[in-house]
Amino acid sequence: MDALPSFDDIRDAAARIAPYASVTPVLRSAALDALSGASLHFKCENLQRGGAFKFRGACNAVWSLDDEQAARGVVTHSSGNHGNALALAAATRGIAAHVVVPEGAVRAKLEAIERAGATLHRCAATQAAREAKCAEVQRATGAELVHPYADTRVMAGQGTLVLELLQQSPGLDVLITPVGGGGLASGVAIAAHGIDPALALFGAEPLGADDAVQSLAHGTRVTTVVPDTVCDGLRALVGERNLEALRTHRVEVITVSDAETVAAMQLLWSELKQVVEVSSATVLAAILRQPQRFAGRRVGVVLTGGNVDLQALPW
Amino acid sequence: MDALPSFDDIRDAAARIAPYASVTPVLRSAALDALSGASLHFKCENLQRGGAFKFRGACNAVWSLDDEQAARGVVTHSSGNHGNALALAAATRGIAAHVVVPEGAVRAKLEAIERAGATLHRCAATQAAREAKCAEVQRATGAELVHPYADTRVMAGQGTLVLELLQQSPGLDVLITPVGGGGLASGVAIAAHGIDPALALFGAEPLGADDAVQSLAHGTRVTTVVPDTVCDGLRALVGERNLEALRTHRVEVITVSDAETVAAMQLLWSELKQVVEVSSATVLAAILRQPQRFAGRRVGVVLTGGNVDLQALPW
Repeated sequence: MDALPSFDDIRDAAARIAPYASVTPVLRSAALDALSGASLHFKCENLQRGGAFKFRGACNAVWSLDDEQAARGVVTHSSGNHGNALALAAATRGIAAHVVVPEGAVRAKLEAIERAGATLHRCAATQAAREAKCAEVQRATGAELVHPYADTRVMAGQGTLVLELLQQSPGLDVLITPVGGGGLASGVAIAAHGIDPALALFGAEPLGADDAVQSLAHGTRVTTVVPDTVCDGLRALVGERNLEALRTHRVEVITVSDAETVAAMQLLWSELKQVVEVSSATVLAAILRQPQRFAGRRVGVVLTGGNVDLQALPW
Repeated sequence: MDALPSFDDIRDAAARIAPYASVTPVLRSAALDALSGASLHFKCENLQRGGAFKFRGACNAVWSLDDEQAARGVVTHSSGNHGNALALAAATRGIAAHVVVPEGAVRAKLEAIERAGATLHRCAATQAAREAKCAEVQRATGAELVHPYADTRVMAGQGTLVLELLQQSPGLDVLITPVGGGGLASGVAIAAHGIDPALALFGAEPLGADDAVQSLAHGTRVTTVVPDTVCDGLRALVGERNLEALRTHRVEVITVSDAETVAAMQLLWSELKQVVEVSSATVLAAILRQPQRFAGRRVGVVLTGGNVDLQALPW
């Protein structure tokens, strides 16, 4: 299940998740328009169910299963928004969700996943330990693996936000999303060019986790980057297929420093009045870092999530 | 200009401000519904122009002036959201705004008022000094005084949000707003009962500034309360006419402690993902303090503003 989705897959996903996912609002800010010189249309996925766009992909995966598969449940390894989203999505279908979480994961996030009805499986904080534990749960339960970004159904689900955004804000020239594993960026690219091949596409990546930029520059996937960034949602290395989609759709990825991202986060809080997590602010940071790319254009800006620990703000 | 507005005044105000004010969204939260046992419809005036409902009243006042009055400008004394709103509203008509601000006012707020194009006039931090300076500016310029809450045009403007809310969320049983000077609560009460006389109306007031509750209990305006609350937007004593509207429309005012309000503020940030100022959180605090009043009902909850100093959060 790691081929790239087609535009039709994304349209199917939109119909599939419509009963469960929110059509999130698009918000504007005169102050941020003035600051950037562009017309910014913020797609507020912080207001999506579960507080992040991840619900779209997880929900599409859960409702793509046939009844027999569904009865065995779903499993993933993620202590962040994808784990929570899969738990919530499984609950909409009344099936089991297993979430493998590494030692040291944030307690509040784990509690949210449990509140959503999922079973937690703890493991050591290495990629190998996560994958081993996941395989173990699969063997024991027959649960379907739903990978956070390399899964076709997940990518298709994430792309559905573009169908909404281009209806809500017609005539956009540009879209920009953060880039982590690339599930969002690839789904968005396929959806965007399925509707309007002339749309310019940008990604925003932390300087301390710039594997997508390096991979696009080298023409092959760079896996040696050791993520060092405050953007906890963007530490994953971009997936092989996700990278292919970025290349095919000519997504230009802009890097931003953590300081720029934290400053942009404060702007989104104070001007747009939206609680967004730090990873979400990379897009505004990128626009403000390279304003000439966006000036005078109508820009769709994806705000990915709003799950924040209010006791540990990054400023 | 301190009579209560009629329902027709409020409908006129809605037409008058429509070209300038935002129709703010109504947001929901499954988590907050579950917590309260009620169906909560949050009217997000933190997303209004200037970041607070105050723009409605100020804008109605500015555009109610005839050309000759308008040419002489407007004046008010407020270092908070009303001062900023009047500055923004005056700018929409291209007229002068004078804002009298007391010593010790927050620098960021003053800068915002100046950015909006108003002239600041500094005075000592007493009510008498503010009124004297205001009168001085009036004499010197002929500017029209626009009082933050006792002004008919301001009350009518604030009431316009109800016309939107009842269209956006049909079939509400209850409305609740914070109560400070009472400009919002009175405008909302008149608008609400103009549309549906069966609507139950509530107010929320900080325990440390409970002059409205005391005034309603005593049957006469109590002016001896010395405000002591973190809710900087709710320290004004309720106005005479505003109090009359609360009484006539049987608005029940619930008091809440600052600790309850700060906890509710964190819930609005973490669950609704909205940056709201502390005064705005009194309404959710009141619902959670007296859940039996709201359980099972469809409740319109007015979130008044989102102008917050991110460097000085109250937790």
